[in-house]
Amino acid sequence: MAIRKYLPQAHVRIWARRESAAEDVKRRELAAIASTDVRTVCDGADLVILCTPVATMAEQAKEILAASLADNCVITDVGSVKGSVVNALDPVFANASAAFIGSHPMAGSEKAGLDAAKVDLFDGKTCILTPTLFTRDAALAKARAFWQSIQCRLLEMSPDEHDHNVARISHMPHLTAAAVTIAALKNDPGATQCVGNGFRNTTRIAAGDPGLWSGIVWENRDEIIAAVRSARDGMSELLAMLEKVDEKGLRRFLDEAKSLRDQVPDKV
Amino acid sequence: MAIRKYLPQAHVRIWARRESAAEDVKRRELAAIASTDVRTVCDGADLVILCTPVATMAEQAKEILAASLADNCVITDVGSVKGSVVNALDPVFANASAAFIGSHPMAGSEKAGLDAAKVDLFDGKTCILTPTLFTRDAALAKARAFWQSIQCRLLEMSPDEHDHNVARISHMPHLTAAAVTIAALKNDPGATQCVGNGFRNTTRIAAGDPGLWSGIVWENRDEIIAAVRSARDGMSELLAMLEKVDEKGLRRFLDEAKSLRDQVPDKV
Repeated sequence: MAIRKYLPQAHVRIWARRESAAEDVKRRELAAIASTDVRTVCDGADLVILCTPVATMAEQAKEILAASLADNCVITDVGSVKGSVVNALDPVFANASAAFIGSHPMAGSEKAGLDAAKVDLFDGKTCILTPTLFTRDAALAKARAFWQSIQCRLLEMSPDEHDHNVARISHMPHLTAAAVTIAALKNDPGATQCVGNGFRNTTRIAAGDPGLWSGIVWENRDEIIAAVRSARDGMSELLAMLEKVDEKGLRRFLDEAKSLRDQVPDKV
Repeated sequence: MAIRKYLPQAHVRIWARRESAAEDVKRRELAAIASTDVRTVCDGADLVILCTPVATMAEQAKEILAASLADNCVITDVGSVKGSVVNALDPVFANASAAFIGSHPMAGSEKAGLDAAKVDLFDGKTCILTPTLFTRDAALAKARAFWQSIQCRLLEMSPDEHDHNVARISHMPHLTAAAVTIAALKNDPGATQCVGNGFRNTTRIAAGDPGLWSGIVWENRDEIIAAVRSARDGMSELLAMLEKVDEKGLRRFLDEAKSLRDQVPDKV
């Protein structure tokens, strides 16, 4: 939807795993061609965007390379993990005429499926590009131009730096939101009737797709363990302060959280 | 603002601790009278709403009872904790002609001050009323009618049940959001540039006023300790699953969180 709005001259094709999903794409007129066949979709393509679960991307890339891609075709992805994806894909492209560059547009929600699609999903959102020593300049330039054209703000960093940061500001908060939801509601479904918007916002992402999220977790396990441990240890320190009525300690904890949170730029 | 919109015939007076705050109320024409003097504001009142920190409410109530209140005056409050407030206030009103009933409108945000005031703040939000054996029927009826007139949805439960539920769906999630913010950003302010709307929503309430929140925490300490311990233990179990690559356990954890979160009614 965003490509059709911002790049109306683009010829868009969509690959889907299931025939019914390809039919749905056709019904919604989201693409000139929608198919479950990789060659039907990729023959002649000059930009391919992998939007499948991260663990499947290397195999997908090999199938795509077997199609008759356009000269200078660039392949990128939208995976939430970059180290494992880029490490798996860089070698696949070592001798290919097509080039790969990792991308992570930080856009989306807890919802899944075409009904949740929004034309302005990418407007003003951050897209992290993760070039490596193997990345070709032309691939980086084409990926930059593409994400900017659909209104993303760009950041560039190494795949490992990406995974470190995103474990802290996305993956760990997701798992914590799940832990909060369970602790709040598990033995106490009556609490559900009392929830306000604070709880709704704090736990919104816990409604995300468990299959997608467990895939992400195992691909970025080490960084996520470090971040979850840090949050868990913070909760243990907090608990100790509550138990010994450490008023100064609690106040320092709340002051520090507010001061860090106040530095987060507002929603765009 | 909501009273002026939905109860335009009401004569509204506002008490403020600081002269400058009373002046600000006058400048914004939010009340017929704004003053730092309790009698100036409360003489003749038939409904008084305590909006000061919970620990100050009993003293405030005594000062208010010394004013010349209208016959059948009802006093209520907006405190986020009800057990300690109601326990402190019920005896104050034992021999008074005015009557007390505890209220907790679950509306607000991480923001403070008149600039954050919104006329539709209460629209469709839940207000929990906490009657006790000492509550007079007329007080409950007047409080119900008032909150409904400014568009709140009502729930009624005992002060202890309120504190139990709200510790789980508000106070603990607040403290967890603070722990997540610190764990994500403390040694890593560079992660700030990567944040998306998931992090913004999950940690929004961590920007709340530390003074207000530490007051709430100490007034509802026992229930909060139980809820924080439950969340902390959930994080420890999660960490163990990540460390031993327990794929089934993680999937169960994410499935359970999604299924509980999906039962939360949507924002109104």
